[in-house]
Amino acid sequence: MNGAESLLQSLIDAGVEVCFANPGTSEMQMVAAIDKLPGMRPILGLFEGVVTGAADGYGRMADKPAATLLHLGSGFTNGMANLHNAKRALSPIVNIVGDHATFHLPLDAPLTSDVPGLAALASDWVRVCESPQSMAKDGAEAVCAALEGRQASLIVPANHAWSEGGNTAKPLPNPRPKQVATPDIAAAAEALLNGETTCLFLGGKALREHGLLLASRIAAVTGARLISEVFPARIQRGRGRPAIERLPYLGEVASEFLKNFTHMVTVGAKPPVSFFAYPNKPSTLWAEGCIVCPLAPQSCDEILALEALAAYLDAPKVTDSEESVLPKIMEGPMSAETVNAVIANLLPKNAIVSDESITSGISSYGYYNGSAPHDWLTLTGGAIGQGLPVAVGAAVACPERKVINLQADGSAMYTNQALWTMVRENLDVCVVIFNNSSYAILNVELARVGVKNPGERAKSMLDLSNPGLSWTRIAEGLGMKGTRATTTEAFKTQFEKAMATKGPRLIEVVL
Amino acid sequence: MNGAESLLQSLIDAGVEVCFANPGTSEMQMVAAIDKLPGMRPILGLFEGVVTGAADGYGRMADKPAATLLHLGSGFTNGMANLHNAKRALSPIVNIVGDHATFHLPLDAPLTSDVPGLAALASDWVRVCESPQSMAKDGAEAVCAALEGRQASLIVPANHAWSEGGNTAKPLPNPRPKQVATPDIAAAAEALLNGETTCLFLGGKALREHGLLLASRIAAVTGARLISEVFPARIQRGRGRPAIERLPYLGEVASEFLKNFTHMVTVGAKPPVSFFAYPNKPSTLWAEGCIVCPLAPQSCDEILALEALAAYLDAPKVTDSEESVLPKIMEGPMSAETVNAVIANLLPKNAIVSDESITSGISSYGYYNGSAPHDWLTLTGGAIGQGLPVAVGAAVACPERKVINLQADGSAMYTNQALWTMVRENLDVCVVIFNNSSYAILNVELARVGVKNPGERAKSMLDLSNPGLSWTRIAEGLGMKGTRATTTEAFKTQFEKAMATKGPRLIEVVL
Repeated sequence: MNGAESLLQSLIDAGVEVCFANPGTSEMQMVAAIDKLPGMRPILGLFEGVVTGAADGYGRMADKPAATLLHLGSGFTNGMANLHNAKRALSPIVNIVGDHATFHLPLDAPLTSDVPGLAALASDWVRVCESPQSMAKDGAEAVCAALEGRQASLIVPANHAWSEGGNTAKPLPNPRPKQVATPDIAAAAEALLNGETTCLFLGGKALREHGLLLASRIAAVTGARLISEVFPARIQRGRGRPAIERLPYLGEVASEFLKNFTHMVTVGAKPPVSFFAYPNKPSTLWAEGCIVCPLAPQSCDEILALEALAAYLDAPKVTDSEESVLPKIMEGPMSAETVNAVIANLLPKNAIVSDESITSGISSYGYYNGSAPHDWLTLTGGAIGQGLPVAVGAAVACPERKVINLQADGSAMYTNQALWTMVRENLDVCVVIFNNSSYAILNVELARVGVKNPGERAKSMLDLSNPGLSWTRIAEGLGMKGTRATTTEAFKTQFEKAMATKGPRLIEVVL
Repeated sequence: MNGAESLLQSLIDAGVEVCFANPGTSEMQMVAAIDKLPGMRPILGLFEGVVTGAADGYGRMADKPAATLLHLGSGFTNGMANLHNAKRALSPIVNIVGDHATFHLPLDAPLTSDVPGLAALASDWVRVCESPQSMAKDGAEAVCAALEGRQASLIVPANHAWSEGGNTAKPLPNPRPKQVATPDIAAAAEALLNGETTCLFLGGKALREHGLLLASRIAAVTGARLISEVFPARIQRGRGRPAIERLPYLGEVASEFLKNFTHMVTVGAKPPVSFFAYPNKPSTLWAEGCIVCPLAPQSCDEILALEALAAYLDAPKVTDSEESVLPKIMEGPMSAETVNAVIANLLPKNAIVSDESITSGISSYGYYNGSAPHDWLTLTGGAIGQGLPVAVGAAVACPERKVINLQADGSAMYTNQALWTMVRENLDVCVVIFNNSSYAILNVELARVGVKNPGERAKSMLDLSNPGLSWTRIAEGLGMKGTRATTTEAFKTQFEKAMATKGPRLIEVVL
């Protein structure tokens, strides 16, 4: 077998089932291998940001990696924004990046770039295949690295892919979760028991149902408040699950929110810092003098840490948790809030929400605490253009679950090509586009830097209304059915219909 | 003035008039400065690949830089594919890339990445502003670097942009073109005069009208054939200008084309190498034993080199050049060729053609030798998604000239957002989309790696027909008028109308 076949078989043997792909000439051997060997489902994205974002969504929901197939440095850079988000989400991903043949590289052909250099800026684990003989082992180790929460990029020179000499490699054993040291558990317990105002600041797998149940047991015996990071990779929410406060997005609001806490124990999250810096505002968000106690940094297992802490504290099971209430479906003019209230009420059980609604969602986040149990995925790294592709990947990982994408219009433009893949793969995704004809968040930010009355030139860089975007038309162009809603009632009817039928669908909310 | 205002004024003073922009929070000070100070036209792109590709097109046509305004590392990576193309085109560009405040960077906030590291992989000149005081000078030097054909990236930490202390800087004198050394001229002349089969292999500014006239004088006295690189940044073609052969794209065809040349003098182009490597095929395209004589490498001025060579050879002016003929407008079923024949006949004088038609254009390239004089811009770096944005930039640089974008469908998807900017700025661009529902070039390449009967999985990675893309609908969604043509006659009517009226328009050629 040639190197490409050897690598592909190794990925399949290690449990990789899906390859999100946008190949070019230098990856044709990988395409031929996928064609020849059974076991890998290729899914085409019409832009690499779709491919990498889909792999992120898949990784968050499947807890195992999909592969991506990317074309040289330029294909890789097109996918880097969503690889950035995926890295922040600690999503398992194995990028397979083609490169020129080793003898071709020094000639500096037009598409030549420093692929290993690029990969090193995006991924935690980077390797260039050295021969067809190495590729099976390279593939197995890449999967292992991905399962450890490190984004893996394997660079495949074309000549190694096409040359004979490939062999097979046994999949490596799954990496073992790392335990937190006992003294750290004791220190965290002490911080929470000190009788002052304390919180558990949670991220990563601490936000899965089991982690939240453990956290709420700890909260019950210590009085700690439970707070989630602003943009978690995946949080399990809804009726019957412990509701948890979310740290506010804007730095000064977050500082205010955190100002009374004397002790903060972080689990699976970094101590909170402001998304951006501003003049004369602090970048770290905890109060001066607050003792921050990182219990499970991102290299340790959050669930093991919470289990150990709950055991140390002898925290009993919590039987009665307060039931969250659903928002009323509101009458009157449509707004992002009225639409979110409808969705919160109608959310099907086990739905997956890919949330990139930015200003159209932030104030309605709490509405969903009372919804049917669901998973919620957010913009971990802040690189916009994530919501649609992550919905693709989540739907591929969980074909039996309804995926709802709450999507800002400006951000959707970056990876609008994802709609096409939803149709091609007949994914059960309902895209709700909040069309407010603006980079609304930037209008807020412009005011925050002191521009009170922006002129035409400033407004022209933040406004999307000239010409207006028609998302139903864009969707139609990409093969997807779409409807427009200009009233809450119309939205409700359209959304009900979308929930009652399977398959891709778009609803444009005209704000 | 603050740092942002100081930098902006410096760019304006150095002659930068246009800023293609996709700003975020960390660039709000630059937005405020553009709003406040007169002299910079901001043009919004709804994705950074549009922004950088537009700057490339602008640079190619204006021979001076536009600025780009990009949001942190993720914004920069979204623009890197077209920055790669721009670098290969030696287009003058000044990227202004925001970064976190210097005190915020070590906190590793969600959007943090290694912006200088990324910029170093894309650009030839990279600087991080060190203080508000340095920014005017930084801007002046960035413009100077860009005018030397080096892509400049200036990274602006937010706190330097918002802090007071900015000053002004005198624009630097324009860089002086570098002369080729006299012995090299003599060596080139000797190579061409040796009486064997010789060629001048031309790229860069050697392909402007003046360069081609000089080259044809040299050809007349030496018998050298004139050959252009496969993907020139800008070639001036059409009636009354010397027609020049184009090196074929496919390596083995190019090798065959070049096999009889004993001497090759390159001017403004690297010695030709294959775009990709293939098993058992040479990567360098000149014949074994051919003496390659690089006259003006890309750091020297091509026109000065050709002038010196023509003078050395005492080459007289060429008065009669053979007139190229236009292709007949063909009857019968529509094809890429019949469409190109129509366009070649109807091309307005001084049109600019942004050509990313890939398989739909390659065989018709010669049709345009007999068209009205025009400029032709191609996919210099091979990173697809260039054609639409380059058309944007060319139209901004040359508002009095008609821009025609010959565009492959698969490539258009990468930067479809460019259509919106064409409408917003009311640019005089006619986009001709060749919709063949396929990555057609990749079907060729798959066959070339030996896959004779691709199966479903391989085909699914190359085919765009399920669902089919409707470019008129996509255009409509982005605010642009579009029509579909399914016969050559219908195309001709639509194209005639587009040429007779100003403003953005799309014609979808359904192949």
